[in-house]
Formats: sequence, C-alpha cells, structure tokens
Amino acid sequence: MNDFFSIIHQDKNTLARLGELRFINFDPELVIHTPMFMPVGTRGSVKAIWQDQLEEIGYRLILGNTYHLYLRPGESIKEIGGLKKFMSWKGAILTDSGGFQVYSLSKICKFRDDGVVFSSYWDGSKHLFTPKSVIDFQFLLDSDILMVLDDCPPANSDAKRIQESLKRTHHWAKISREYFEEKKYLENTPYKKIFGIIQGGIFEEYRLESIEYIQNLNFDGIAVGGLSVGEEKNDFNRIVEWIGPKLQKDKIHYLMGVGKISDLLLAIRNGFDIFDCVLPTRNARHGNAFTNYGKINLKNSRYKLDHNAIDPDCNCRVCKRYTRAYIRHLIHNQELLGYELLTYHNLYFYYDFFKKVQQSIKENTFIQLYNHYIQFSW
Amino acid sequence: MNDFFSIIHQDKNTLARLGELRFINFDPELVIHTPMFMPVGTRGSVKAIWQDQLEEIGYRLILGNTYHLYLRPGESIKEIGGLKKFMSWKGAILTDSGGFQVYSLSKICKFRDDGVVFSSYWDGSKHLFTPKSVIDFQFLLDSDILMVLDDCPPANSDAKRIQESLKRTHHWAKISREYFEEKKYLENTPYKKIFGIIQGGIFEEYRLESIEYIQNLNFDGIAVGGLSVGEEKNDFNRIVEWIGPKLQKDKIHYLMGVGKISDLLLAIRNGFDIFDCVLPTRNARHGNAFTNYGKINLKNSRYKLDHNAIDPDCNCRVCKRYTRAYIRHLIHNQELLGYELLTYHNLYFYYDFFKKVQQSIKENTFIQLYNHYIQFSW
Repeated sequence: MNDFFSIIHQDKNTLARLGELRFINFDPELVIHTPMFMPVGTRGSVKAIWQDQLEEIGYRLILGNTYHLYLRPGESIKEIGGLKKFMSWKGAILTDSGGFQVYSLSKICKFRDDGVVFSSYWDGSKHLFTPKSVIDFQFLLDSDILMVLDDCPPANSDAKRIQESLKRTHHWAKISREYFEEKKYLENTPYKKIFGIIQGGIFEEYRLESIEYIQNLNFDGIAVGGLSVGEEKNDFNRIVEWIGPKLQKDKIHYLMGVGKISDLLLAIRNGFDIFDCVLPTRNARHGNAFTNYGKINLKNSRYKLDHNAIDPDCNCRVCKRYTRAYIRHLIHNQELLGYELLTYHNLYFYYDFFKKVQQSIKENTFIQLYNHYIQFSW
Repeated sequence: MNDFFSIIHQDKNTLARLGELRFINFDPELVIHTPMFMPVGTRGSVKAIWQDQLEEIGYRLILGNTYHLYLRPGESIKEIGGLKKFMSWKGAILTDSGGFQVYSLSKICKFRDDGVVFSSYWDGSKHLFTPKSVIDFQFLLDSDILMVLDDCPPANSDAKRIQESLKRTHHWAKISREYFEEKKYLENTPYKKIFGIIQGGIFEEYRLESIEYIQNLNFDGIAVGGLSVGEEKNDFNRIVEWIGPKLQKDKIHYLMGVGKISDLLLAIRNGFDIFDCVLPTRNARHGNAFTNYGKINLKNSRYKLDHNAIDPDCNCRVCKRYTRAYIRHLIHNQELLGYELLTYHNLYFYYDFFKKVQQSIKENTFIQLYNHYIQFSW
C-alpha cells in the first residue's frame, strides 16, 4: 500500500504506465499525473518565466537546485520560510542534493568518504556537503521530495572509478535514509519524501548491484542518476532499457537530468515516470523551439518573413499571437521578450507532450505515439 | 473642431487638462485618455514585457523607434504588414523620426541641409535620413502617429548651434508637413497623424520662434523636443513652465523623452498631455522600483529579508504575489525573471500614476496630487 504513488493504468504493449503522485500536505491534496516533466528552477526561478505562467500551463511540480540555493541566498531562505514561500510557488518542489552540480560546476571538487569538498562557482570559497548536511539544507528549503547525496562520476569513468563511486553512493544512501527518518519525525513533517539514487555508469553489473542496494533501503521513490552525462547514445539506450524492467513496479521511477524528446520516449517506454532537464528552457535562450515535427532554430534566416506560429498545431499563448518572423527578430536582437516567448512555448510544448503521452498510455496507444515522435529530429 | 484630440476637462487651478485621443482607424474606435504615458518599444518590443501584459495593465498606445527598426529588421517589415502586425500589437503606435537616436547612438552623425548622414550602431554602415525618407519609413511601419525629422542639438549647445538647428528643423518641418499630406492621400490613409517638433534649447527667444513657426504649420499635434537631454534641472523647469502656456490649447501636447515623475508632474501642470521614456523599463533592469513613496533600489541589502511587496499599496500581479526579498535575490543573480517582474511593476506604477492624475484633474485636485508626489525622491 502506497498513498504517495499509485499506478492507474499499465500500457498493454510497453512498460509505460500512467501514475498519480499525491502530496497530502497540500490543501486540497495535490495530485500530479505521470509521466510528467519537471521544469528546473535552478536559483529559485525557472529562467525567464513567471510562476503565474508555469501554473497557467499546468505545472505543479518543479525542481530546485540545492547547490545554487545553498550558495545564494543560502541559509537566509529559512527566515523567509523555505523555497516555496520565497519564490511564491503554490505547487510542490523536488530538490536535488547538489551532488551533480558540485562536480559539474565547481573548479575544485574532492570526493571523500565523509562527503564532498568543493569551491563556490561564485567566489571560490570552500564548502563541504555531507549526506546529512544536504538533507538538513533540503529541510530548510522545505522541499516536498528530497534527494540523497550521491557520487556521480563522469561519463568516461573506468570500472575502478565507478566501483569507488558506487561504494560511496551506497554508504551515503544508507546514512541518508536513516537520518531522513529521524529528522522527518523530529521536524514533525511525516509527509516529506526522499528518493534514493542508482548509479553504476554504463556497466550492467554495477547498475544491478546499485539497483539491489538502493531498492533494499525502501526509499519513497527510485531515481537513476549518471545518465545523460556525456555517454554515447547507444550506451544511454542500452542502460535505460536494461534498468527499466528491473525497478520495483510500485515505486515511482525518476530519470534524472534527461530531457531530449527521443530519450524521454525511450525512458517512458521502459517505465520511467518523472524527469527534469534544463533543455526546454536553455534551448529557448538559444533560439530553439520545439514543435510537433521536431526542433527548429528560429535564428535561421529562412524564418525571416515566416508569418506562421512556431508550431501551427500548438494552442499556447505564444503560438496564438506571435509569428516565427517576430520571435526570430527578437532573438536576433537579444531582446529579452524573445527568450520569454520561447521559454513559455517550449515549456508548454513539454507539458502538452506529456499530456499526450498520458492519454496514449490510457488508450494503450503509446507505441503509436512513440513511433510518431521518434521519427523527428530532436 | 478636432475629432482626433479633445479636451474633456480643464483643471481649475493649473494648466493640467483631461483629454481624449481618438483613433478612428480601429474597430471599435480606440480612445486614449490623457495625460498618459507611452512605454517605449525600441526594437519592436517594450523590453522584458509581453504585449499581452501591456494590454492587461491598460496600455493602448506605445512608441516605436524608427532608427532601430530601420536598421533591423529594416524594409522587410513591410512584407510582414507593418510594425503593429509584426509585433502583434492591437493598440496604436507613435513612431519617432530617428532624429534623436541618430545623434545619440551613432558614432558618425553629420547634419546637412538635406538630411542627416549617420553610421549604423550595429555594423558602422553609412545611411542618410531625409525629412521625406523618414516619413516613407514610418508609413512602411504603418504608424498611427508619425513624427517629423528634426535636428536635436546637445544640451550644452551655444546660441549659434541652436540657431542653425532651428533653421534646419523648421525647413524640414515644412517639407514634412507637405510631403505627409501628399502621401497620406496617395496611400489612402486619411486617418494618419503627424506631429511637429519644437526645438530651441534652453533659450526662450528661440523656443518662441520655434513655437510660432511649428504651430503655423497646423500639425495634428505639437511635440517639444530637446529637453531632458542633459540640461540643468533649473533650465528644464524654466523652459517647460515657459513653453506650456504658449502652446495652442486645442492641440495635443507631447513632451518627448521625459519620464521622471517629478518632471512629469511639472509638465502635466503646464498642460502637457503625452510622454514617452525608457525610464520605467530601463530602471527595472537596474533593480529600481517605483512606489507611491518614491523610487527604491532593490539591490540594497536592507531588502534581503523583506517580506513586503515592492509597494504594499500597489495592486499589480507582482505586488500581490512576490516579495522584495525574492525580487532582490533575482536581480542580484541576474535572473531574467527579476527584470520581468520589475518591468511589469514599474509600467503598472506609471499607468496607475497617470490614472490617478486623470482622476485628480477631473476632480480639480491635481494640485494636491502634485504636492503629494513631488515630495518624494524620484
């Protein structure tokens, strides 16, 4: 029995499933239908879009980055009442543990058995994240779903480095699981959830070891990390297809940092439920727009006189009002409105895409949707 | 008889007046109540705000810059159907002539009797604006109110330079007036309007000469240029107070490029009706917010834990939802949302301020409103 996540329908042809994620600490209770995408609100803001607009599109669950928020605004966020209150976000938040950013953004980053020492990307100052300290900080953020600290090795890591990272990741996962339970009761927040993270690089044997270890700790959800970190497309596909069927069916499956439409299709097909990625928002700031026929770059001069909407089949505010020619002009001239319009459209596209995915699972036609979208260039 | 601009009420204590500006080429007819502020949409976008949001606030008349639009996107805007269609703006537009930007933005700028030669601020390429060419371009933009080309000399110009600029400005005004009438009938757009521009620096005698010359040409509206270009505060006040009473009462009075609240108060008091300025939008991008108690800079560390709205008396979307602490964090971290929220709030503040001005004129209490707002720091 699991009142947090329940499967509403299992697709007849693939591992794709329709689920419901329930947050009982909201009034009325907040229900998120899965599969679903979480926009990334790195520093307390999903870049270039208003919270009002995220709500208008339909998003109710976004991701916040512990690494960024720990450095700025830091602990003062507690005095404001946590991240949701700080940014006036009425939905739920999942916060990562900072483990990935520490290694991807910091000049100095040293993994030790007790934690990871890193330098701030703002001012070079030294900091230490431990399994417990990142849980403390996520409590301070008043996160609804917390992530454990993990050691996410680079894509080109050899077996030895993977083994080492796995040992550490598992040791930390155990500490985190216990510490979280303690803290949850001390803080009287029994509704908070914590997800474990499976690592293991592109090696099946290590992934299997990690799946077994992490699933044994009985987390509220199971995340898979260390993918989309620079590995070959074939390796990504192989590992996703290999892991998917081995995850406990009754737990929610979160594939971290993955956002390419073709990757999402494969992951959904293999039973993954939630995803986060900066792709739709970062792409927007580079002039890339998502359409139901693939990704287009509006900087291209072919759109100079194009009177059409970004995607004539899209019902978003941007597509109902603005043309490709206009948005191209804005992006070309670094006008902030260009980034705003494309960010809105891209996040609308992702939400709409996931709604279509949900509908197709319900009707057991996900495989047709998969075959349709997989043919375009993403 | 003037169906374009009519005065609804004259304040009993000052020259301030309540007016109506009518655009019969809109369906239904578009009516703008004055005094009113026009946000500046330099390159086809009022920076950092959606057209939808400008409408939501209440704006129906914005300004477009000929100089910027001529350079980018240039003539291709004709193929799109003009500026309003290009940017999907449902209200009216006033376009300037480019005369001011040519001298303020171009490295090379040479005023000749037939026009002004300048270099593009994008690529250094050479261009010529003549009184007729800028009217042609404003027709191409499908502007509702066109401005004549003028020679706007720097604030520190001596009497000789002012005399020279005046001769040129007046000569061009005459050519423009005639050419506009011709073109208006050729293009079958009898509803289009053109405003003349009074120059003369900070010298009463030249201003008087210019008022007489320009008013004789019977433009649809009278603009005053060459103020707020770097002159002393005392000179600005002296000239505004001196010119105001001398303008034809039945014409609309446009004070160009002025947007400081204290300057607006003085100008409204002296019978000016419409204004444009980048101040509320540019200030937003520097962390400055307008409140009913003066301007505040949210970068200041005193706002770090401030749970209040920017202006607790403001009813805008931003003030109803977001705190000073949050917006400070966004601006501090160069998050685009910070610029977006402050731009919205500042433009809401200006619109609301002008609505209060209108109401006070209606009730003959403008002088009280003047005395209230003039005491704060702007």
